[in-house]
Amino acid sequence: MTPASPDPAGRAAALADAAVTGDRRALARLLTAVETASAVGEAAVRILHTRAGHAHVVGVTGAPGSGKSTLVNAMLRELRARGRSVAVVAVDPSSPISGGALLGDRVRMQEHAADPDVFIRSMAARGHAGGLAATTDTAVIVLDAAGFDVIVVETVGTGQSEVEIAAAADTTLVLEAPEMGDEVQAIKAGLLEVADIVVVSKGDRPGAGRTANLLRTMLGPVEPADAPEAADAEPEATSGPPARPPRRVPEVLITTGATGAGVAPLVDSLERRRARIEERPVTEARVRRAATMVWSIVSERVRADLASRERAAETWALVRAVAAHEIDPYAAADALLATRDATARRDEEG
Amino acid sequence: MTPASPDPAGRAAALADAAVTGDRRALARLLTAVETASAVGEAAVRILHTRAGHAHVVGVTGAPGSGKSTLVNAMLRELRARGRSVAVVAVDPSSPISGGALLGDRVRMQEHAADPDVFIRSMAARGHAGGLAATTDTAVIVLDAAGFDVIVVETVGTGQSEVEIAAAADTTLVLEAPEMGDEVQAIKAGLLEVADIVVVSKGDRPGAGRTANLLRTMLGPVEPADAPEAADAEPEATSGPPARPPRRVPEVLITTGATGAGVAPLVDSLERRRARIEERPVTEARVRRAATMVWSIVSERVRADLASRERAAETWALVRAVAAHEIDPYAAADALLATRDATARRDEEG
Repeated sequence: MTPASPDPAGRAAALADAAVTGDRRALARLLTAVETASAVGEAAVRILHTRAGHAHVVGVTGAPGSGKSTLVNAMLRELRARGRSVAVVAVDPSSPISGGALLGDRVRMQEHAADPDVFIRSMAARGHAGGLAATTDTAVIVLDAAGFDVIVVETVGTGQSEVEIAAAADTTLVLEAPEMGDEVQAIKAGLLEVADIVVVSKGDRPGAGRTANLLRTMLGPVEPADAPEAADAEPEATSGPPARPPRRVPEVLITTGATGAGVAPLVDSLERRRARIEERPVTEARVRRAATMVWSIVSERVRADLASRERAAETWALVRAVAAHEIDPYAAADALLATRDATARRDEEG
Repeated sequence: MTPASPDPAGRAAALADAAVTGDRRALARLLTAVETASAVGEAAVRILHTRAGHAHVVGVTGAPGSGKSTLVNAMLRELRARGRSVAVVAVDPSSPISGGALLGDRVRMQEHAADPDVFIRSMAARGHAGGLAATTDTAVIVLDAAGFDVIVVETVGTGQSEVEIAAAADTTLVLEAPEMGDEVQAIKAGLLEVADIVVVSKGDRPGAGRTANLLRTMLGPVEPADAPEAADAEPEATSGPPARPPRRVPEVLITTGATGAGVAPLVDSLERRRARIEERPVTEARVRRAATMVWSIVSERVRADLASRERAAETWALVRAVAAHEIDPYAAADALLATRDATARRDEEG
């Protein structure tokens, strides 16, 4: 067992050391700490981020009832059969209380209980959706550093934030069940925009082929399996942000979770994508993910600074003046930043 | 007609001047500009924020099918009967394409087409949920400055961000339909946490009284109608943030949209809340809303600065180093902030 340590950094370090050497109980405890305490999350990322970057992060999302759990289970079996270790993070932001995802996970966990190369984790909403996205990012870094080959992030695609969690992956699968008829459910939620691969699930149902053809027509020509990886090419070492490339036409595949039909071709496609990432690991998707993390930390740092003991009086006086409609929020923000910069200068001169 | 102006500030100023003097076409154009261009949104807020603060902002949220539109229409009629001017902002983040909300609005608009003191506006998702929240805040400031007595912000309570949009109001109504039986739908989505008033809609259905009693038991004792306003008392002029007070027990009311039963008592309650706000306008809710706006502008300013021409090279080199797992995102964020502070010092010295 890892020794308990009172300070977050020490606790994170002890758990991280144990987790990366294969101690699954330490890994579970580290993830619990990450979920409940942001100080531990920061410490864990600081320790583990530079050891991460080897996992293929696969986001799986789709409307409720599209068959996400069944597909993830089938993918899990196929990946294990090919010798890949797999961690699954099931994000369920809409149900802080309900046991839906947790129950499903218990069933999954039973199947793989004896397999040390499978790790399944549910993350329920703790509060803010942004918080959940940040917690998921941290959990992915932890699991990546712990050595899992594939990390599946499964979310229900009902809200923008949930979709963004899944889309913060190397490869994003969007599920579409065929029985919906003409109306493709994924369109409504804007899911198709984030898809690298669209999976028509429940391929044994009559409408599956028709739905797949409808999707292919909507999305454009089918991507050849060995097409050159234009969109994920290594970004040039220019100074600017990565120009968001025109999205590649997603592949459309059909799977049948019950029989496993179509799952091997899906995993083949994932493996091809993995190989391309291994060749050039700094993909546009990863640069965007890194930028999102850095921006969010910068924002938090500036906020914490403005709310710190030395600055709180002025900060809250300005906020109250905004609430009283005496000044506008842009003027308040600019005044706060000007004071912050002036203090930085004084600190230097003093 | 307002003259078109090429620069965002000029355009916003011209439209704002016309809008606050009752030009509804200018108001509509200003809101369109706010929805589609952030520069115009900033200019509009800068001009109009100090003219706002008189409207009672009422958020209305609930699960799909809980009867939001029917209730809002009934409230609208009752408020008009009492001489209040009313603007309705219907936020529909989940349906960028579907015409559900828009269709409902067209029906509403027909009823009030000849009434200059009613204004109804749909806001569909444009992209990021945070963006939609910011756009909604801006639209509320514009409508407030335009002189509407009551601004109703209606959202479907399916995701955290949608709930937050409704909760950024002076008073938040959460709807609960009775037919759901024992399982109170609002619990799942965390809706009840944001409620000032819980409305059991469809009061003519058999389960309505039972649902109301269930909710009252869950939420605690019924608030006396004229209880002293402890939670929304004027914050003391201390330096700190407003301590989030223990939430007041929400009122539970029953309405029947079809007959209008219960709507007058609901509007009575809204008017009592309005009177308390008019007495002490800088409520905790408004301070929190102001803080959220100021934080979000501060974050955007710092980001824009780091991505500016002078700093972009270093910023993106650091982000790429994070994507390559060479440095951790906290180290990158701290390096960016240190450079920013150093530049502020150099600018001063030079």
